[in-house]
Amino acid sequence: MNFTEELKSLKDQVSFDGRFEPPSDFNNMVIAGMGGSGIAGKIFSEMYDDVPVLSLDDYHVPGYVNDKTVFIAMSYSGNTEEVITSTDEALKRGAHVYAVSSGGKLSEMIKDTLEIPSGLQPRSSLGYMLMPLINTFLQYDDDSVERTISLLDRLDTDNEMQKTMASEIIDGERIPVIYGLSPYRAVAYRWRTQFHENSKILAFSHYFPELDHNEIIPLKSTYRKDLFKFYVLTGGREERNDRRVRVTEDVTGAELRKIEPLGDTLLEKIFYLIHFGDYLTFHLAKLRGVDATDVSTIEELKKKL
Amino acid sequence: MNFTEELKSLKDQVSFDGRFEPPSDFNNMVIAGMGGSGIAGKIFSEMYDDVPVLSLDDYHVPGYVNDKTVFIAMSYSGNTEEVITSTDEALKRGAHVYAVSSGGKLSEMIKDTLEIPSGLQPRSSLGYMLMPLINTFLQYDDDSVERTISLLDRLDTDNEMQKTMASEIIDGERIPVIYGLSPYRAVAYRWRTQFHENSKILAFSHYFPELDHNEIIPLKSTYRKDLFKFYVLTGGREERNDRRVRVTEDVTGAELRKIEPLGDTLLEKIFYLIHFGDYLTFHLAKLRGVDATDVSTIEELKKKL
Repeated sequence: MNFTEELKSLKDQVSFDGRFEPPSDFNNMVIAGMGGSGIAGKIFSEMYDDVPVLSLDDYHVPGYVNDKTVFIAMSYSGNTEEVITSTDEALKRGAHVYAVSSGGKLSEMIKDTLEIPSGLQPRSSLGYMLMPLINTFLQYDDDSVERTISLLDRLDTDNEMQKTMASEIIDGERIPVIYGLSPYRAVAYRWRTQFHENSKILAFSHYFPELDHNEIIPLKSTYRKDLFKFYVLTGGREERNDRRVRVTEDVTGAELRKIEPLGDTLLEKIFYLIHFGDYLTFHLAKLRGVDATDVSTIEELKKKL
Repeated sequence: MNFTEELKSLKDQVSFDGRFEPPSDFNNMVIAGMGGSGIAGKIFSEMYDDVPVLSLDDYHVPGYVNDKTVFIAMSYSGNTEEVITSTDEALKRGAHVYAVSSGGKLSEMIKDTLEIPSGLQPRSSLGYMLMPLINTFLQYDDDSVERTISLLDRLDTDNEMQKTMASEIIDGERIPVIYGLSPYRAVAYRWRTQFHENSKILAFSHYFPELDHNEIIPLKSTYRKDLFKFYVLTGGREERNDRRVRVTEDVTGAELRKIEPLGDTLLEKIFYLIHFGDYLTFHLAKLRGVDATDVSTIEELKKKL
């Protein structure tokens, strides 16, 4: 599958009906995953708050994990060392452990593994990772899923705007900085990492309203300000934060390019914003003449560790 | 108090014996605070994991907050709108609410408020905010507290190295990027925000091992790589992460300046790293000829909101 086909597979992944069978009486949740396999947990932790949800991207399992914990291990390869280490510990603690992977050690370790198709880049499997969380703990009606698929299809068909935006980045060799409003903080981080992996450039992210208490100062007066290109993922949960975006622009004079999600439900909006960033970073890779699928640096690291 | 005196007051703050009186049967904790008043909760959430701890830097209170929640509101001024909003909601949910502030609305709203001295910048009151959390939920022996004070005093007396490092940033108008290892992720973020508020320049942060799954790629091959100055706060909980730092340097060819904390206990190490960053960013402000205490951009924003 080439990378364009990978991108286009996202809309099919939204129909994935995998789900977990958690016990009725858990009181906290840990979703372990690194990089492209960790982003689903980070996004989900902003969508669901009936119990505390930790997106775990390290080796260390918190002391509170026990038999009241739902622990979901996500690793596309099934062999990510941080996830294997933490999952092993979670099993010892008696947590209810589930997994999503395309194979590897993880599916041998965990009986309740949702097996997903192999052959993708881990970061291109976000739908397969996110939908089981949504299907199990949130549920959206079929209409919302259908509309999400339409929105993604629309981006697959027409992404000229993202191409134009990519050319604005490459022209001045700009450094993208993406700001998210709740519940799009993790989507802003997703954009950052797609710039890393697809476009091979450094990019950064932060979020409102927190940045109004610190980053707003250099937004006004940093050196090299023209080098940066600022994006804000708007239309979040609190209208107050949208007002903050406008006043922040006013006070700092910084140009914050606002990306307003299409769609009615959170499901549509989140997938729209995700896919918007997918195409932006993919076009930037093409314009830079780099291979969006090349992750040899990560492979070399894993070999040498 | 001038800013040098503010910095020097940190070592006295470590002796602050304020503490909360939480109930015995809580099962999760939320620490609400923004910017300079939010950093204590972020740091603490990496030190303590007997129950899930959320560092809340937004308006929205998670659905799970109820009478089994310890909710600690931190606002130096006592008037931060996000914190007032979330605290109000936490009270309605029946949470056990405590506060730390130097006055304002918060101390009127919350009977159990630890009043701390006024007259500091919020970010200079980190000791007053962090120590009550440590005193209540972690406890360190007096020796460790004494050694922490000595380490801070040492930095107050000799910070020539931080001045030299600041000059390396200003010379090329570099962009600092700080990487933290657990449990120094939030300290890396603290450095970032001190660059923002003290030095008035954009700076960014990320953490190991997560960055080995994404940011490592542009660390090798981004454009404008020479513009950045990378720091790693090392000597964390997992030796495996220290190995990752070395291999990441090897694979990417990026120069990662390692900052190794002095001290034996986590208390000493964390305060040492914090104060190291305080002086680095303060010297950078002086070298840039900007006023480290000037936060007029934030004040203007608050007025216009």
